[in-house]
Amino acid sequence: MPEEPELTIQGWGPTDPTDAGGDVTRALPKPALKYLTRELGWTPRSTPPVAVDQIRLGPSRLSEEARSRFVELLGEENVRTDRDSRLRRAGGKSYLDLLRRREGDASDAPDAVVLPGTTDETAALLTACGDLGVVVVPFGGGTSVVGGLAGVDPDDRPSVALDLSLMASVQSLDVPSSLVTVGPGMRGPALEQALDQAGLTFGHLPQSWEFATVGGYAATRSAGQNSTGVGRFDELVAGLTLATPSGVLELGSPPASAAGPDLLGLALGSEGTLGVITEVTLRVRPKPQSCAYEGWSFRSWAAGLAALQHLARHDLLPDIVRLSDPDETRANLLMASGTGARLLRGTLRTRGHGAGCLLVLGWEGLPSIVRVRKEVASSLLRDGGAVRLGRRIGTSWKAHRFSAPYLRDRLMDAGLLVETLETAATWTALPTVYDAVRRALRESLTRDGRKPLIMSHVSHGYPTGASLYVTALADLDDALPIQQWLTAKRAATDALLGAGGTLTHHHAVGADHRPWMEREIGPLGVEVLRAVKQRLDPQGICNPGVLLPD
Amino acid sequence: MPEEPELTIQGWGPTDPTDAGGDVTRALPKPALKYLTRELGWTPRSTPPVAVDQIRLGPSRLSEEARSRFVELLGEENVRTDRDSRLRRAGGKSYLDLLRRREGDASDAPDAVVLPGTTDETAALLTACGDLGVVVVPFGGGTSVVGGLAGVDPDDRPSVALDLSLMASVQSLDVPSSLVTVGPGMRGPALEQALDQAGLTFGHLPQSWEFATVGGYAATRSAGQNSTGVGRFDELVAGLTLATPSGVLELGSPPASAAGPDLLGLALGSEGTLGVITEVTLRVRPKPQSCAYEGWSFRSWAAGLAALQHLARHDLLPDIVRLSDPDETRANLLMASGTGARLLRGTLRTRGHGAGCLLVLGWEGLPSIVRVRKEVASSLLRDGGAVRLGRRIGTSWKAHRFSAPYLRDRLMDAGLLVETLETAATWTALPTVYDAVRRALRESLTRDGRKPLIMSHVSHGYPTGASLYVTALADLDDALPIQQWLTAKRAATDALLGAGGTLTHHHAVGADHRPWMEREIGPLGVEVLRAVKQRLDPQGICNPGVLLPD
Repeated sequence: MPEEPELTIQGWGPTDPTDAGGDVTRALPKPALKYLTRELGWTPRSTPPVAVDQIRLGPSRLSEEARSRFVELLGEENVRTDRDSRLRRAGGKSYLDLLRRREGDASDAPDAVVLPGTTDETAALLTACGDLGVVVVPFGGGTSVVGGLAGVDPDDRPSVALDLSLMASVQSLDVPSSLVTVGPGMRGPALEQALDQAGLTFGHLPQSWEFATVGGYAATRSAGQNSTGVGRFDELVAGLTLATPSGVLELGSPPASAAGPDLLGLALGSEGTLGVITEVTLRVRPKPQSCAYEGWSFRSWAAGLAALQHLARHDLLPDIVRLSDPDETRANLLMASGTGARLLRGTLRTRGHGAGCLLVLGWEGLPSIVRVRKEVASSLLRDGGAVRLGRRIGTSWKAHRFSAPYLRDRLMDAGLLVETLETAATWTALPTVYDAVRRALRESLTRDGRKPLIMSHVSHGYPTGASLYVTALADLDDALPIQQWLTAKRAATDALLGAGGTLTHHHAVGADHRPWMEREIGPLGVEVLRAVKQRLDPQGICNPGVLLPD
Repeated sequence: MPEEPELTIQGWGPTDPTDAGGDVTRALPKPALKYLTRELGWTPRSTPPVAVDQIRLGPSRLSEEARSRFVELLGEENVRTDRDSRLRRAGGKSYLDLLRRREGDASDAPDAVVLPGTTDETAALLTACGDLGVVVVPFGGGTSVVGGLAGVDPDDRPSVALDLSLMASVQSLDVPSSLVTVGPGMRGPALEQALDQAGLTFGHLPQSWEFATVGGYAATRSAGQNSTGVGRFDELVAGLTLATPSGVLELGSPPASAAGPDLLGLALGSEGTLGVITEVTLRVRPKPQSCAYEGWSFRSWAAGLAALQHLARHDLLPDIVRLSDPDETRANLLMASGTGARLLRGTLRTRGHGAGCLLVLGWEGLPSIVRVRKEVASSLLRDGGAVRLGRRIGTSWKAHRFSAPYLRDRLMDAGLLVETLETAATWTALPTVYDAVRRALRESLTRDGRKPLIMSHVSHGYPTGASLYVTALADLDDALPIQQWLTAKRAATDALLGAGGTLTHHHAVGADHRPWMEREIGPLGVEVLRAVKQRLDPQGICNPGVLLPD
């Protein structure tokens, strides 16, 4: 297995792919910089992270008894308590995680990192941890943006990060059945590379694709940029193995079953609270023979939503659907430089779409099918007032599809709050949810007359509704940066739930959304989850800091 | 609400739609009759049911305390202990159910029938039943073919059938979001009629469509004849309300959510063991503008499976896919009478498909999309050796799509065992499952040199595999008819599980499949279900005779 790039401890990516270094004036085009400065009342300033060697990390609290038990099970090299190993598995990559790490706080780091190599080793380890009272936090790519790796334990027991990187290979490939079974530590690029040899693809491409793992996707019900077409990750799981402190569950009966309630759906989204996913069987597909990405424009957000809804009810949504609201559209146009971008801005003004909405669409599959789907959809889009802008915008979006988290580091270096949140709602509720979230964020992030910038897009479409992805930018509160975002997040979450949105469409619950879980699924729903957890994890050692409210 | 036809107590349908009366010689064309007589070593003879008034039914065991508590909650007219009410809710419509009812045995009848009108009434009733120690068996259409209404209780407590027919209307229709919310007692025809006015359809069409209810579909993870296209019933449920003895759960967040494990998927397929489904929100769609049904033929079963698998991996399967094996094909051709059928048999012989496999396909949707899907699929089918037979076969299949259970009554009247079972498996495992089930049924149903007829078809296709539906016909063992089928069923189930099939693809578990649930989901999987049941139904009053093994 080739070495895979590791995320930095205080940010995203091994290096910045835009190669702009640490300077925001090089990471952003001049018009974008000017626009942000004016809109946010922000003065670019240097707010760098502390040096990595200055991050505060307490000594490991793992008992010698526990350590030697783990060594017995896994071997010396797979039980690690060194500073670098622990720091690299401390928390995830939410804005709050980064704020803490940048300030030099690693109090959420595990006391040790353990690396089992098989389901049996994992199960034995969980049993041992139950006996020893050691908390277990599964660690795949470490890309959670909702505090999924918080490692908080009400009883403050020692904790280990259960690193999945030794279980990261293809176990079996059943080409006629379009099924592949892989280890949970496998990342997207490695999976695609393995499938490519057989002319297959999996096609799950979230923004975290370069680093996130299959196990993490399963544990969090991930959705990718192509999920409108290929399906959400949970829809592509045909089976999985869940090692729990009470034994091993083998779940799923492809292609489908009516043998009782869906236990596979209980393991998906369980975020490590019931055990550790040690194997995942996925539906794969032939590599698309034809890919068509293109841009469209609407005069208004309402017109864009109406057109998508119309496509959706006829099952005509493309594989990729991203409709930006006017604020995000303006920012995206300012981020694009060069003659092409200037011409485009001119065209849009001329057509009366100067304050309109960009739509990126992508079709993939067999050429003749793609052609007719595109034709029928294009005709409905035109009926809905859309103007086709051509392939350039689609290609450009594709080229930058993973770049936002890299840019976030540069913005954080320069005195900006930058965070995202997301939800989903029915087509009927979506406009209300959109208004409510924007209002809540705008009100809570306005300080001394300086207003935030709230940008939104629909990132996934369904027959019954769509997701909504929201990015907030604001001038950083240098004194209380964590409090600044917590207040805004609380207001936005209350607002979106009140308007009929779901707590999360694809980021999962983690520690950050826990307080709202009772509102999402009801007190009795929480009790059902607790009953399942109690049966599988009676000592409560499995990722106790996430999902279930206190 | 117009009166809906009721199923007869001892068979299917209010009347026989083929209008053939009780005589098998009129229900079957002469060539089919001759063929069956020869193949099965069967002598048509009269084996009629006992008269309805001779069915043995014990007195109601419901205590006066319980009755008056129920009357208080629901009103006098909604608590019924009369003979007809109880007989009509005794068991379902499996071959074993019919054997018992035809023999005059109604020992599985409920002690009373209760009809709540709302979620709140249902919840209050469940709480009361918990207090009183009364078992509750939800009753929708009464069409279970797996003993889902067996009402068996290890503690032999009195039982009530909780009839859903008062909760059978449309609650709300959200056209932009393509969502309808209906009561669980609503049947397919009423639902389609209500949606038709808005130009919409639901499109779920199992063989039981005329009588089965939405609540039953949800409780059993039903699949319909169009499910390859529109999706299984469970995939179309966007939300539901589950009244339990411990309170009411509101589940589902359309269009999609990542907020933890899927609790909706726990209620689907729960078969009344966790509570009663009192409201269901479903994804609906525009009525198809174009419908194309047609027949194809393959020289062999293996060639047919290979072609379907090829379509499936490219997501090119039509909305309806039914591939009959050579035995079912021969029987179907013999059932078709007239010049057209004779010509068809001649054509097939000429093309070397005389012992081949018929395939019925159906495409529905927008005309241009249907056209191209059909074109691409047809080309792949021809590459796979298929011969197109035209629309007549498709139209004929459509006309008889609900008729099999009516015919079953006529065959049972004439000394035949006739029952079906079903499973699903990956494309790789399917041929082995097919062979194993056929062998097991053939061996266990052969008596004194008289062999059974085992006919199979693929009824639903998926990218990763397909379902397999098997019909067994044999000369009735007049002395031990129940034992005759139980032995065969046991052998077939052991065989299909051993070969990699699932316990049930769309009939559900009921009482009949209970003994194999541990093999299907593992002992720990059963324990998880038990933990959920214990939390929601601590007194174990909710349909204790099904799903979970003893």
